[in-house]
Amino acid sequence: MARSDIPDIVIGRLPIYLRALTRLQQDGQEITSSHELGKQLGISSAQIRKDLSHFGEFGKQGTGYNVASLSSALQQILNVHHEWQVALVGIGDLGRALAHYGGFAHRGFRITHFFDSDPHKIGQAINGTPIESVDSIAEKLRRDNIKIAMITTPAETAQEVADRLIEAGIKAILNYAPIVISVPDEVRVQYIDPVIGLQRMAYYLED
Amino acid sequence: MARSDIPDIVIGRLPIYLRALTRLQQDGQEITSSHELGKQLGISSAQIRKDLSHFGEFGKQGTGYNVASLSSALQQILNVHHEWQVALVGIGDLGRALAHYGGFAHRGFRITHFFDSDPHKIGQAINGTPIESVDSIAEKLRRDNIKIAMITTPAETAQEVADRLIEAGIKAILNYAPIVISVPDEVRVQYIDPVIGLQRMAYYLED
Repeated sequence: MARSDIPDIVIGRLPIYLRALTRLQQDGQEITSSHELGKQLGISSAQIRKDLSHFGEFGKQGTGYNVASLSSALQQILNVHHEWQVALVGIGDLGRALAHYGGFAHRGFRITHFFDSDPHKIGQAINGTPIESVDSIAEKLRRDNIKIAMITTPAETAQEVADRLIEAGIKAILNYAPIVISVPDEVRVQYIDPVIGLQRMAYYLED
Repeated sequence: MARSDIPDIVIGRLPIYLRALTRLQQDGQEITSSHELGKQLGISSAQIRKDLSHFGEFGKQGTGYNVASLSSALQQILNVHHEWQVALVGIGDLGRALAHYGGFAHRGFRITHFFDSDPHKIGQAINGTPIESVDSIAEKLRRDNIKIAMITTPAETAQEVADRLIEAGIKAILNYAPIVISVPDEVRVQYIDPVIGLQRMAYYLED
């Protein structure tokens, strides 16, 4: 089945399954089931089985899934069985926090390129790598064939930065700036917006 | 219909609809449709209509939705038509970035309480409010009846902080620490994990 034939909403759940499996592996658990995963994740077991059925046969009726095999298969499907280099633009508090974030390791990503527009920051090292000028985005990202970037600039400059990244060949953007950015159809954007999670929980709170 | 009768996955989409509507309002658009929203969000128009039908009748066949009315209705449903005070624990780079984040205003949340365990940080002001000791979490949050908290500590201390927050009466936690925290059934947790968004996009990238 072609990659584009599978609904994006299904693809969006695979990383959640992978994260749950990684935890089970860390806990030393070897076998799991769609029921166990579903209970942990608040997703129905039928949904999980249906999602996975797009990609082949995993596990057997009655015996469940082998945690390591399914985890490895999902890494292959998601294209994160190798490490992607990632560019980060905007070295403020958030950019620094991401540079030191412990959650990327062994999950397919490493931030290798740092950019900022502030002359005082350019040349400073972060994780041993010098911060470079946003003016060199196109040159550096094309040279190193970088496809993924994160934007942690203020809202006002995020679109301009996105334009530069796209010009440099970036195909996937994780945007932390609180604005919607316009990108061509072949470029994907995901937003990190804390308010979405807060609002989802507020629904259940009593005033 | 009781709040708990509606699937959480439906509730999870409402903030996305609300964000899209807010943008349309900012652009001065008065009427929209499930087709337009669906196209913007990559969600089918049938799904949007079905989600909204849980909460009443919005818009009319052929005339679409009034943007301001639907936006206001969603704010009421999500319980964010007033402002919630939020506690933030962990004043590192990420905590500071969130303290200065421009995306909370007018969306139902304001960070009013800051906590850290570092004696050098305690007493410093952030947004004009002093950072307090994690030892005073229970006292301060109970006094001010705070129900929502964000954890931006390192992974190692996140569970201990979560335990203190729950002890203090917190019912909703937005967790940025890269670990899963254990909470009682009546407490909700949402995770902010950049890798989930990155992996979802990596699926579509060519090696």
